[in-house]
Amino acid sequence: MALNKKPVTGMKDILPEEMEIREYVQRVISETYAGFGFTRIETPCVETIENLTSKSGGDNEKLIFRILKRGEKLNLETAQSQDDLVDSGLRYDLTVPLVRYYSNNSANLPTPFKALQMGNVWRADRPQRGRYRQFMQCDIDILGEADNLAEIELILATTKVLGKLDFKGFEIRINDRRLLKAMAGWAGFSESDYDAVFITIDKMDKIGIDGVKAELLENGYDAGVVDKYTALLEKAVSGDATLQGIMETIGEESAKAPVENLDTIISSVESAKEADFKMVFDPTLVRGMSYYTGTIFEIAIPEFGGSCGGGGRYDEMVGKFTGQSVPACGFSIGFERIVLLLTEKGFKVPGSGDGKAYLIEKGITGERLSEILSKASEERKSGKKILTVRMNKNKKFQKEQLEKAGYTEFEDFYKEALK
Amino acid sequence: MALNKKPVTGMKDILPEEMEIREYVQRVISETYAGFGFTRIETPCVETIENLTSKSGGDNEKLIFRILKRGEKLNLETAQSQDDLVDSGLRYDLTVPLVRYYSNNSANLPTPFKALQMGNVWRADRPQRGRYRQFMQCDIDILGEADNLAEIELILATTKVLGKLDFKGFEIRINDRRLLKAMAGWAGFSESDYDAVFITIDKMDKIGIDGVKAELLENGYDAGVVDKYTALLEKAVSGDATLQGIMETIGEESAKAPVENLDTIISSVESAKEADFKMVFDPTLVRGMSYYTGTIFEIAIPEFGGSCGGGGRYDEMVGKFTGQSVPACGFSIGFERIVLLLTEKGFKVPGSGDGKAYLIEKGITGERLSEILSKASEERKSGKKILTVRMNKNKKFQKEQLEKAGYTEFEDFYKEALK
Repeated sequence: MALNKKPVTGMKDILPEEMEIREYVQRVISETYAGFGFTRIETPCVETIENLTSKSGGDNEKLIFRILKRGEKLNLETAQSQDDLVDSGLRYDLTVPLVRYYSNNSANLPTPFKALQMGNVWRADRPQRGRYRQFMQCDIDILGEADNLAEIELILATTKVLGKLDFKGFEIRINDRRLLKAMAGWAGFSESDYDAVFITIDKMDKIGIDGVKAELLENGYDAGVVDKYTALLEKAVSGDATLQGIMETIGEESAKAPVENLDTIISSVESAKEADFKMVFDPTLVRGMSYYTGTIFEIAIPEFGGSCGGGGRYDEMVGKFTGQSVPACGFSIGFERIVLLLTEKGFKVPGSGDGKAYLIEKGITGERLSEILSKASEERKSGKKILTVRMNKNKKFQKEQLEKAGYTEFEDFYKEALK
Repeated sequence: MALNKKPVTGMKDILPEEMEIREYVQRVISETYAGFGFTRIETPCVETIENLTSKSGGDNEKLIFRILKRGEKLNLETAQSQDDLVDSGLRYDLTVPLVRYYSNNSANLPTPFKALQMGNVWRADRPQRGRYRQFMQCDIDILGEADNLAEIELILATTKVLGKLDFKGFEIRINDRRLLKAMAGWAGFSESDYDAVFITIDKMDKIGIDGVKAELLENGYDAGVVDKYTALLEKAVSGDATLQGIMETIGEESAKAPVENLDTIISSVESAKEADFKMVFDPTLVRGMSYYTGTIFEIAIPEFGGSCGGGGRYDEMVGKFTGQSVPACGFSIGFERIVLLLTEKGFKVPGSGDGKAYLIEKGITGERLSEILSKASEERKSGKKILTVRMNKNKKFQKEQLEKAGYTEFEDFYKEALK
């Protein structure tokens, strides 16, 4: 009979204090992106199982919460495997749903289409501290814009959000998949090895240049190729080789397009930016998902080890699914990490904590109560938060509790005027 | 290979125009309730199957989307029925999760606890026009307040929301389950028949007093009892019998508490209200869910046949699940219906549609692009919406498209100044 009080494994109840921050961050995101002409959209949390298992989700496809078929469609006796039991599941990201949404609705959407999505996604990951099986993702995508104006806007808008949330001195690390490939090709790796090589250099921040070198040799690549590659990487990381220098080294044919791309994005963002951060070319930035085709970028916040969001250009993904080629570029903000960082910093939402509580003695009713409530209505008109609540016997304790909940002003109302 | 473009059966993609209204309504709800001291909370969309099937959800329990067990817990060979395959499901309302949330977290929550929830729920209803299998619910609840100050606040805050959304001339219909019972008891019905009798009088607005009378007789109730009951109901509905009059007729013993309750709520709300509506005592108001114990109320908007939200007092529900008695009262706003009404009315979100678009000729890059983007950043500082976009060959068509998307001002930027 009694309810199970706990949330399901790996998911959590959100208490008022955290919720206040979450709501504020969502509002800042929504308002800031609206200022750049992004429009909010929403897709259902449930997608067909075919779409969820179409190999665009990488390892996330192993973590799907599957939803049982209903009614006549569910036939337990003939079911051979779980695939026969389900026809849909909870989305594990917002990218697959976006691509489906765009192909379903593009006739009614402007070009380019600038979409903002904020929504929950679900992954049946092993539960661990700070990671939950339901969490919010916040994705901004520009579909139908091949020009790097898309990248510039995504970075300008996202960093403006971070600035509004009081983050300072952070970095946007940026690279281009085409440059990554050009450097690897110049060093002598064969194209079929690129992905494996990139997995190794992606670990640079953890294992250092010596670690990268050792791992590449261990994986059996030619020592001359590895030396040539890591020497250039080292110069690029240390800043001894600029983008121009890299282009001169590896040749214009393969490097010109990505270098010009990165130059334009870096200089445009630096001059129009509205937050305290730096654009940093990072020749070792890889980004996990294989669907990226050009620019890739990542937020690095000093207080937080690791990335706090990122994205890039994925020009081939929409075409792969719809047959119609549509250039696309997106940025996913690490919403949960930002909320966590703000909570740990003791961030106070502007305007919170200046509420006023009316304590109304029990038994006050009729006209007197109406007067008090009208007064509260009047005070609220200025935007003030007014709580009306019955006075407890232990008024002192009640006020302490209310102070904890953010009330700083009190007014007591008694049945008879105090003498 | 190709994705399925359509959303899953019965669920929908939300386009930018609707999303703008949804987001605005959510913001009005959130800000207005915050002004009354409500705090936002959230529970996971997934609940354990035991909680979802604990008989608190009425018929909704037949409509649950069930989620398949994972890993070792899923054993297809030994499964006898679908119950063996699932351990959780998508929530079908926000009340069961609220009660679970409160019992899980009450030590960290203030008393009374005033909660605002806005979240999706899922019901595998037969798909039909305007009704979807995923929809948003918006619930406001006060837990731990036995006084009817709770009802008054819920009604004042909810009607303020409706007023801000430009609804006028609507009604809040109100009744008390205790008065319903007192009237039925006075007429001579036995207590075990109350629920069945109430199902009939709930149809009053559709079948009229004669229909109610006929159905009660058809169901085999004593003609004298039915006559006595419907005569009083008729007088009450027509306004010939006031609340005082009903109390004089059926006696103070059973009627005093609910009549005083309704009197206080109606007069307090009328005097402190901040929207254009009327409080209407409706002796035939029943509200479906069996868990209500006292006051019940409903929003009736003239443009919309049927209820647009409602709620009431459910003092026994928390206790039933936790063993600890906690008075409770809630109001659920018909979020989807409100959005539908606003959309049909052609409601324009304040401030929407006054954006400005910069059309930037292709090929503008480097410093010139930086200047244009800096100018956009500058203009955005006043809160203005500035879209920066590459100029298409067909600029006229592009501007028409942008006008449809709400841009009223344009500025063109060319590589070379026009002569």
